Formats: sequence, C-alpha cells, structure tokens
Amino acid sequence: MTRVHVTASREYDVLIGQGLIDRSGALTAEVLPPCRCMLVSDSTVAALYAQRVSDSFVQAGYDVSTFTFPAGESSKTMKTLEALLNAMGASGLSRSDFVVALGGGVVGDLAGLAAAVYSRGVPFVQIPTTLLAAVDSSVGGKTAVDMPFGKNMVGAFHQPSLVLTDTDALRALPRELITCGAGEIIKCGVLNDPELFAWMETGHWLDRIETVVARCVAYKRDIVAEDEFDTGRRAFLNLGHTFGHAIEQCSGLSVPHGMAVGLGALMAAAAAGCDEALLRRLARCLTVNGLPVRCPYPASALAEAALADKKRSGRQITLVLPQDIGRCVLQKTPVAELPGLFSKALAALEALEL
Amino acid sequence: MTRVHVTASREYDVLIGQGLIDRSGALTAEVLPPCRCMLVSDSTVAALYAQRVSDSFVQAGYDVSTFTFPAGESSKTMKTLEALLNAMGASGLSRSDFVVALGGGVVGDLAGLAAAVYSRGVPFVQIPTTLLAAVDSSVGGKTAVDMPFGKNMVGAFHQPSLVLTDTDALRALPRELITCGAGEIIKCGVLNDPELFAWMETGHWLDRIETVVARCVAYKRDIVAEDEFDTGRRAFLNLGHTFGHAIEQCSGLSVPHGMAVGLGALMAAAAAGCDEALLRRLARCLTVNGLPVRCPYPASALAEAALADKKRSGRQITLVLPQDIGRCVLQKTPVAELPGLFSKALAALEALEL
Repeated sequence: MTRVHVTASREYDVLIGQGLIDRSGALTAEVLPPCRCMLVSDSTVAALYAQRVSDSFVQAGYDVSTFTFPAGESSKTMKTLEALLNAMGASGLSRSDFVVALGGGVVGDLAGLAAAVYSRGVPFVQIPTTLLAAVDSSVGGKTAVDMPFGKNMVGAFHQPSLVLTDTDALRALPRELITCGAGEIIKCGVLNDPELFAWMETGHWLDRIETVVARCVAYKRDIVAEDEFDTGRRAFLNLGHTFGHAIEQCSGLSVPHGMAVGLGALMAAAAAGCDEALLRRLARCLTVNGLPVRCPYPASALAEAALADKKRSGRQITLVLPQDIGRCVLQKTPVAELPGLFSKALAALEALEL
Repeated sequence: MTRVHVTASREYDVLIGQGLIDRSGALTAEVLPPCRCMLVSDSTVAALYAQRVSDSFVQAGYDVSTFTFPAGESSKTMKTLEALLNAMGASGLSRSDFVVALGGGVVGDLAGLAAAVYSRGVPFVQIPTTLLAAVDSSVGGKTAVDMPFGKNMVGAFHQPSLVLTDTDALRALPRELITCGAGEIIKCGVLNDPELFAWMETGHWLDRIETVVARCVAYKRDIVAEDEFDTGRRAFLNLGHTFGHAIEQCSGLSVPHGMAVGLGALMAAAAAGCDEALLRRLARCLTVNGLPVRCPYPASALAEAALADKKRSGRQITLVLPQDIGRCVLQKTPVAELPGLFSKALAALEALEL
C-alpha cells in the first residue's frame, strides 16, 4: 500500500493498494470515529461494491445509510444533489457524521458537494473506483454539479478526510475506463514527469498501477498544497482541458472526458508550436493507449464551445502549453485569439497525417 | 460613518452610517474593481432600494443584472437558489464577478450561498436593510437555505468582501422589524456588553443606532476571528437560540426570529438558575422594547422541537447560559436533560407572574 499525504486546508492521506475496499471501514476508523455515515454511489458501482463497503463500515462500528442514483453525467445535477441532501436529513446525519463517495468522478463531485453544504460542511471519504477519479478528481477537493449553462458551474472546494483507492477495482475496469484514465495520466506525464510518460508510451503500465496512480496523486498534491483555490499554479492541471472541453461539447458529450483531455493535450502542444518529433511522440503515446489523435470538429465550432467555458476570466483565458515532455508553461491569451489558435492546432495535426 | 474591520479567512470592512445606499457603488469600487455584478433582493426591499443601489453601481462603472424573489422565509429554498444560480449563469457572471445581497437575513443567506457555490465561489457584498441582518446575519459568513428537514440545514461559510449598513434604511423600518432587531441586540448585551444592555433598557437607543450596530458587529467580529467555522467559541452567539428555535417551530414560524431569540435568552437565564432580580431586569428590558416575555408552549413540545435542531451534535447539545448581564457560559448538556430544563425555565418564569 502506498500512502500520499496531502496538506491543504485539511490534511489527509490518499491510500493506494490492493484490497482496500474490504478494509475501507477499518481504515476510515483511523481518521473518523464511529458515527453515522451516508454511503453514496451510482447504480453501476453500487451493484459491484456497495455491499462490501457497507459491510466493512458496519464491521468497524459505523451506522451506515445508503443513497444510489442512476449512473452517468446526466445525474450530476442540483436535482440529484437535493435528493441526496434530503436523504441525509432523513437519516439524521449531524455535523459530526460524514459522507462516503463510492464511485467515479460523478459520484465524488456530487457526494463531495453534498458534504460541503450539509450543515455547512461535514467530512467525506472518497473511494474512487475509476482510474480517472483515482488519479485526478478524488484528490484536491473540487466538488460540483453541472448546470444548464455549463459543466461544474456550481460547487465548492471541500477536501476529503481520506481517499481510499483499491487497485483491484481499477484493474477490473472495462477497457474504455482504463483508456479514459490513461488520458489524464499522460497529461500528468507531459506536465511534470518524463519517466511516467515513458511508462505510458510502452502501453504496459497496468502492472505498476499503484505507482502510476501514486505519481499522479503526488504531483496533484504538490500543486494543491501551493494553490488549493485555483488562483494560480493549479491552472497547470487544465492542460488539455480548454481544447478537451471544447471537443466534449462539440461531441454532445459522446467523447468521454479522459479521451478528450488526451487529445486536448496533443492539440495544445500543436497550438504551442511544438516540433514535429514531439507531436509524433505524444500522438504515438495516445494511440498506444487507445486514445484518439484526430479531431473531427472545425476550429470555429471548437472556439465557440471554448468561449462558453467557465475558465474564461473576463476577456482572457489561461492556456497550458507544452514545451517538452515534462515541461509546460501557462499563457494568458485574449479570447479573441482562440479561433486562430484552434486553426493553428488543427493544421499542425493535419500536416502530421496521423 | 463607523468602520469595523473583520479578520476571518477573508478580511473585510463593515461600514455603518447614513446615506450609504446611494454611495454603495463607489464604496464597493474601493474593494472590487468594476466588472459584472448580480444584485439580489426580495420583492419588498427591491421596491424600496434596488433602483438606487443599481444606479449607484452603474455610476461606479459596474455592469448590473438583477434578481428579485418573493419576500419571506418560504423563499429561502434550494428552488430559489437554483433559479438565482441560473440567472447568474444567464448573465454571464465569471469567477471574477460578484453578487450584491440587498435585504434582510433571507436575502443575505440565499445570495451568500449562491456566491459561495457559483463557480466554486465568487465574492459578495452585503447591504443589510433590516436591523437583524445589520447586527447579526450580514457579518460572519454563515449562508444557508432551509430544507424540509430543518432551517439552515444546507449552506456554506463564505465571508462577504464588504458590508454596507445604511442607518437611514434601519431607522425607516416598520416597528416590528425594529423589535426583532432589538431581540438580537439585547442578546449581544447579555453576552458581553452591560453598557449596550443599559442603553436597550431605556428603550431610547434608535438615536444612537450607528453605535449600537457597531458594538454588536465588533463583538461578533471578535468571536468570528477566533472561531470562524463554529467549532468552539462561536457557540456563544447561539444564546437564546436553542429555546428560541423551539419557540419558532412550535409557533409554525409565526413568532419572528428576533422575538424568539429575546424570549429564548430569558428562558436560558431562567434555566440557568439566575436569581429573580436578574430575570426581572432582563424581562423588563424585553418588554420595554416590545418583545414577548411569556412562552405559550408546553415544555414537552418545546423539547421535541429543540431535539430536531441541527445544533445537536450526537447526544449532547451546547447551551449558552447567562450568569449575569454581560457574562454567559457554555454548557454541554445531554439531550435527555432538555425536557427537564425547559420545565425548569417555564416554572421560573411562571413564578415571576410577569
């Protein structure tokens, strides 16, 4: 088991290893004394793991209630949030009780926000069951729901009290969810970690998944420790997201987030004017891991979608531009320049004839 | 104009004085640079002041949108919150824009929560127009909406960037709203300030309203600086609230909050075993200011309502018990003892034959 200690407004451990789901209650008891808790999951994950997690928490002395909602991003709404909060109230949760988020990013974001606002904040424990959640969304305290006017537009910064990542659950994921996680891991390599990137290039990295997840978490930990509330350095974590969100929007959300981020990082490298060798190396790493390297949407549609993105702050947008594998820069860019940058990126990728 | 500087997770000024509504834009511009803002108010207050505030902000260079909801506690729901958040999205508010809460406690609580969660937090400015909001809810960063299972059960700690209290607006309040505010001011005197209490005993304190509001705000500032997240000393501010919330609940919310808190403080003094002279002095101060001193509900009903209160933490409740005017103590009390304490308080008040 690997332990990554996070120091933000709350200090907590991220534990990564085999068999943690069946030890989740006992591991939580080292941090939160026995009390009431609300186990939140979606229909897919609940069927796989909710009973085992619940048994483990009951065994450790907790009084467990459960709340399950239909799997999928379309559940990440204020309506589901309100239903969850009402369920917490009906279970009699007090300020000293807590929430357990068992699932992927949607569960973590939604349950985390419920924990952030119930009684103005109760603790929560993350048990990420997707690779994307394990390497990214379960750490750092960003919680949210989607609104009609944009993804993640309503939320809170609320750090978990503990993150438990069971690598057995990650290994058991269907191929597509492994692929999505790979997109975020490659992003992490491009940002900061040439060795991690080299592992990803081989395509054979599942045999060292504990180390891979721990590397990503430790990098995110360093960023969050310095800029928890996303006013500076945390913007690096958005590598591939300006382009990626635009791709997601243009696809009507049919391109999954992790895939869009991987392709988005490649487009950012192209927009940054990286040389052909670097672009080919990055594209190859994506391809080896089953991620797309071609963008079917025109620059105009992408730019329009990007402008609706919440990360715009007034008339500027902060882009994360790769310089080399393991080194990126932030660049404030007038939103008026976005269409040109999208065109430049698409043209550079076109020229590679991938 | 009196300036009280608050140091919490965010530092800000509370400005109290005449004519601040018409200077609200210029005063805000000293803190938040010209950008977009959403002016939130209820139907009652909007009719009185929204245009003047909006004009002042436009004059100072802001791009102002407005959102108005029906006046009353029944609007303090997730439904109104969602409508407000959608209006903020429709107005294109970015992370660097902000919210202005113009009104009483309901407006401040609701608009403050919207500011807390929109884009995971944007700044907000409080312009309290009731005495209760001026002396209590506008300062300290507690925001919330009510849920079917309890008042203020969903919320956030989110400090304003500026509080502007126009004493002309307070003087113009209808009698009942002055009375409600008096309940909270008397609470503040009992907690900490014998001189303030003595002013309230005269019944003639409106002529020094700026000083009275500033005293209450400065006391709350000291508490919040020490215990922003309500895990210790901030519990003192709940004087009269355990008994008061029970009275509000039993009355079906027909007894207003400030009145219930005043009576609740008297009942807390009775439950604490204060001597007859002190109880009579406190009762007289309430009566002089138009506040009730008799509780028409039986101890059993009050106790049941109090047990549903969210401030229960497990099996104990923290009571604030007056020892003298200007001195109170916190006492953790098993919830099982509440019915007995309510009976004791009611009997002591009965014996006074007020």
